[in-house]
Amino acid sequence: MTADPSHDTPTAHTIEEVPETECWELLAGEKLGRLAVLAKDGVDIYPVNYVVSNGAVYFRSAPGQKLVDVTASPFVAFEVDGVHERRRWSVVVRGDAERLAFDSEIHASGIALLKSQAPTEKWNYVRISPKTITGRRFTSR
Amino acid sequence: MTADPSHDTPTAHTIEEVPETECWELLAGEKLGRLAVLAKDGVDIYPVNYVVSNGAVYFRSAPGQKLVDVTASPFVAFEVDGVHERRRWSVVVRGDAERLAFDSEIHASGIALLKSQAPTEKWNYVRISPKTITGRRFTSR
Repeated sequence: MTADPSHDTPTAHTIEEVPETECWELLAGEKLGRLAVLAKDGVDIYPVNYVVSNGAVYFRSAPGQKLVDVTASPFVAFEVDGVHERRRWSVVVRGDAERLAFDSEIHASGIALLKSQAPTEKWNYVRISPKTITGRRFTSR
Repeated sequence: MTADPSHDTPTAHTIEEVPETECWELLAGEKLGRLAVLAKDGVDIYPVNYVVSNGAVYFRSAPGQKLVDVTASPFVAFEVDGVHERRRWSVVVRGDAERLAFDSEIHASGIALLKSQAPTEKWNYVRISPKTITGRRFTSR
């Protein structure tokens, strides 16, 4: 096989793990993430605005398919990424999503103050309790 | 129940569907998307650089968990979003992901020229053949 310059050449240490405490700092600095859920007909994905509070991720959802999916299949993956000093980072939280039942929880989380991604009426507040949180940082070339 | 100003008030026509042809234009104008897959232990999500070509989405993958997931459970959801004239849009492609087996397919897609998200060696090229493509545009407030 001949060398193909269009392929990446392998480079050492170009992906770096981000420690958990820094993952939370990165999450706290952004507001838009993407939520992957298991829908009846396979995986689906939604952009959502979120807040972090007390080691959990909170978002709002209008009554609709996203909420139905999360209720039927609570295990979700949530990803946020950004660029810092020319290096892209990505943090993924995986865990169970649960609709908040009590006003006290809703108010404590700060989620009620969040500007929502889709500006419709949203009365449902959802918490993702992380089972795992992982972060990676990529060297731009 | 008393009015709570922290809640969104409902507004008419604040989410708009994006026609399919425009979805493709929006996809073609970006390069970073998020891939939702079904892993062995539930949904997972990865940021990926991509190209669109001939009505399909192409990305590269290093040998690793993402590729294992896609091989085991080919139905994926892929999301790209952006902001245009102060309005955020989001396009979601759902369909089967398939590893490209032939150099001719790889070269025709243009994917071999793509700068990858994670700059490691990537020898696997994957095509998502859309079953559905949907786009939404949100009015910022």
